[in-house]
Order: sequence, then C-alpha cells, then structure tokens
Amino acid sequence: MKTLTGRDLAAAIRTQTQAESAAGPQPRLAVVVATADEASLWYVRSIAKAAAGVGIDCDVVDLGPDATPEQIGETLTRLSADPNVHGVMLQTPLPAGASAQELAAAIDPRKDVDGANPLSLGRLAAGLPAFPPATAAAVMALLDHHEVDLLGRRAVVVGRSTVVGKPLAHLLLDRHATVTVCHSRTRDLAAVTSTAEVLVAAVGRAGLIGAAHVAPGAVVIDVGTNPTDDGGLTGDVDFDAVAGVAGALTPVPGGVGPVTTALLLRHTARAANLP
Amino acid sequence: MKTLTGRDLAAAIRTQTQAESAAGPQPRLAVVVATADEASLWYVRSIAKAAAGVGIDCDVVDLGPDATPEQIGETLTRLSADPNVHGVMLQTPLPAGASAQELAAAIDPRKDVDGANPLSLGRLAAGLPAFPPATAAAVMALLDHHEVDLLGRRAVVVGRSTVVGKPLAHLLLDRHATVTVCHSRTRDLAAVTSTAEVLVAAVGRAGLIGAAHVAPGAVVIDVGTNPTDDGGLTGDVDFDAVAGVAGALTPVPGGVGPVTTALLLRHTARAANLP
Repeated sequence: MKTLTGRDLAAAIRTQTQAESAAGPQPRLAVVVATADEASLWYVRSIAKAAAGVGIDCDVVDLGPDATPEQIGETLTRLSADPNVHGVMLQTPLPAGASAQELAAAIDPRKDVDGANPLSLGRLAAGLPAFPPATAAAVMALLDHHEVDLLGRRAVVVGRSTVVGKPLAHLLLDRHATVTVCHSRTRDLAAVTSTAEVLVAAVGRAGLIGAAHVAPGAVVIDVGTNPTDDGGLTGDVDFDAVAGVAGALTPVPGGVGPVTTALLLRHTARAANLP
Repeated sequence: MKTLTGRDLAAAIRTQTQAESAAGPQPRLAVVVATADEASLWYVRSIAKAAAGVGIDCDVVDLGPDATPEQIGETLTRLSADPNVHGVMLQTPLPAGASAQELAAAIDPRKDVDGANPLSLGRLAAGLPAFPPATAAAVMALLDHHEVDLLGRRAVVVGRSTVVGKPLAHLLLDRHATVTVCHSRTRDLAAVTSTAEVLVAAVGRAGLIGAAHVAPGAVVIDVGTNPTDDGGLTGDVDFDAVAGVAGALTPVPGGVGPVTTALLLRHTARAANLP
C-alpha cells in the first residue's frame, strides 16, 4: 500500500508559486471571515502564514459572527472592485441566514481563487477556464502527482457538496473517468464504492469508509478533516482498516490539506498575473 | 413493458403554459440561428409553431451560416437587453469557430430559457434557481409524470454534454439519486449501464443501447434524436431489443422531444412573469 502524501507536492507548488508571485505584480489575497468557529479561524491563520511564506499578501477581513448577508455581500463586492486585491475568498461557516452560494456570486470570477462563485462552477462544468475550488483541485493534483491514470477508469465520489463533490465530478469527467456521485441517500454505499478504481471521500464523517467499502488495489483519496477529541484531525476513511485493502491512500492530516492551501495560493498568484 | 410517451404530458404542459402566458405580459421568445442545417431549421420552425399555439410570440433571428461569433454575441446581448423579449435561445450548430458555451454567456440568465449560459448551469449545480436546459428538464418531467421514484435509486446517464448529460446529472442528484455519468471513454459500458435502475441515453448514436446494456425492469429514457435514411428520427436505444428487458421505455419520436419543446415555452412564459 502506497501512502499518497501531500506535503512534498505542496512544497513543490509553493516553490513554483513563489516564483510566479515574484514575476508579476505583488499578489494580494483577501479572506472574508464572519464566524467565531475556532477550526475555521485556525485555517484562515494557516492560509495567511502560508501566503507570507510565498510572498503573497493576505488580508483577513473579519466581519465578526454577527455580520449580515448585506455586509458580507458589500465586502465581497468592494474587494472584487479593488485593483490591489487579486484573490477573494469567503470563509465558511457563515452566520445563520447567509448563503455562501448566493453571496459568492459577488466575487469577480477572475478573483474567485477558491471557485465559490456559481459562475466558476458553471464554467468548469462547461469546460471553460475557471478557478476550481482549491480542495477539488488538490484531489486532482494529488492524483496527477502520484501518476494515477484516470482515462476510462471508474471514479466514485462520496459527497455532493458544491465545494468538493460536484466540482470534483466535473474535473474527473473532464479527464475521461466514468464518474459516480454518492451521498447520504445512496442505498448500499459499500456496493457502489467498491466498484471504484479511484474513490474519493468528501463527506465530513470520521471513519465512514471502511475496508468493506474499498475494492482491492483501489486508489483512495480522503478529503475529510474531522476534529478529534485530542485536538487533532481525522479523515472520512478508517486509515488502518482501508490500508489493508487499498492500493494507495492519502493520510489525514498531510494528504489533501496541505495541497489545498498551496493551490489556493497558486490560484492567487495566477489571478495577479491574468492579462 | 410500459411505454413512457411524452405527447400527453406535452399537451398538459402547453395547456398550463397557455394560461400562464395569458395571465401576464405578452411573452416573446427570440431564437438566434446561424446555420443552414436542415434538421436544426426544422426544429426552430416547430418551436415557432408550438409557441404560436400557446400564445407566445416567437422571433427567429436568422444570422445565416456565415455569421461571426461577434455578430452572434452582439445579437444575444441586444436581445437580452430588449424589455419586450423574455426568452433568448441560441440554436446549434454554430459556424466553425463559434463556441455555444462562450457565446451563451451573453444571454441574461433571467431570459436563458434553455439553460445555455454557464452561469445557469453553475446555479443549477449549486442548488440556486435557474432555468435548466429544456431537454434535461424534459427527462425529469417525464420521470415525474410516470411517477418514477428517484430517491436513493441508481441513475446512469450516458453522455456528458453541457446541454443534457451534465445538467441532468445535477437534476438527478438534487432528487437524491446516486448518479453515474458514462461517455465515449467509459470501459465496458454495458457493465455500468446494467447497474442502473434509471438509465438515460443522451449520446446521439442510433441504437447504442441494446438489451445487454439494460437491467431487467429498468426505466430507460432515450434522449437521442438521430435522423434515419427515410427522413425520420430514431433514438440512442434499440427500442425493440430493449423493450424485451426494460420495465419502461420512452419512444423516439414521441417521448422526450415533445416535452422539451413544451418546457421551453413554459420557461418563456415564466420568464415573462418573473418579478
């Protein structure tokens, strides 16, 4: 069983991104936050730190957990119009009553470095240039880095979120995989997932995918980042159980996560260099 | 085997649409054409005739087969800005060098009654209100009309086009089906399609789906409209062969086609009534 680590790939992407950052105008990423959720704030701080490491300015625009949808929308519109800002990201969760999908429509698609605007998703689905969500892009980058063939292969994505499952299905289709999307209403999940040559778990339920869900030799990508009682992270895949069946498996932490952050920064550097 | 005819459903939709048309401002559909393709021109004439039948004005804006992408884009922009036009549709095929996906971005999403703008597809994927492509909507309307249960069932869509396969996958996911998308690169197509409880063929290859592709009792929807030598139409499904295996099957012609045209008109009437 091969462990598909993400740290080396993330480091390589950061090195490239640093060069791309230095080559053009000074890139600036703005992250809009409207939550008191500790895990979310921790993630935003890790983005800011990683950005500094590759020469990208990062503004955290914290509107607080009581921000209204109007305030969030106005902030996204203002940042989209600011010529000194190249990437705009809306961090979730949002206050009750605020819809990330609706609000993200205010992000200029050219600055939509986390692929949150429905227009970005539609362009992706239609095969037009667009920034995919960084997490979905990270899954593809990991598969490519570890030279996993996709053409004509059966890929199963567990999870149908707008930020991972759905855009990932389009990215996999674009690479000529036969793609199945499963979710909470899927009957006999293990029967479906065990047909996968490439299995992606993106649900947010610790240990959902066990040995019985995985075909022998399958490549398994774990997008889950579920907090553990001891303050750590664990994936959607029962690593120890699945390691005995899968041909290759990403760890959590250290798999998709670091690549996601690195790609968010790459997207920002590229947005700064758009003609 | 139940034949899932579309004519009765189409007639019912037209009757409703006529009432909706009469209730608000006079609806007007503009169809932009830039082809000499006979089948395409025939389809546009059939739309215009059906529109007249339900009290919808229909303008066919024929730019000719030599129209440039710029001319097509300007026409779509002008019609999108015209307050007397409520629905705008870009008929394919287009002249070489013109991309329907790129050009359709010029259609105001509120007038995009055939769901061609990538923003409409993205909004559909994100679960936001949008007009789906009429063909994809027709498949769902036929399934509902014939009371086909979708929750938790395995649906397989053959074909990954932006106008049918991809939006249909989102519509089926939204109804809690487990959805697989197959295409020309799928290995062992019959092995995948024969897992389907609901199978949709949307490829454009006459007779592609035979008895070996279909599970006993499956519901089969044929979106194909392939011209025959005698000037008729035939589907992607080998009707006679599959009729011996499937539980239910749409005919071609007389299945998805009439419902598609009726829904295009319903979308136009609804666009005219948008607040």
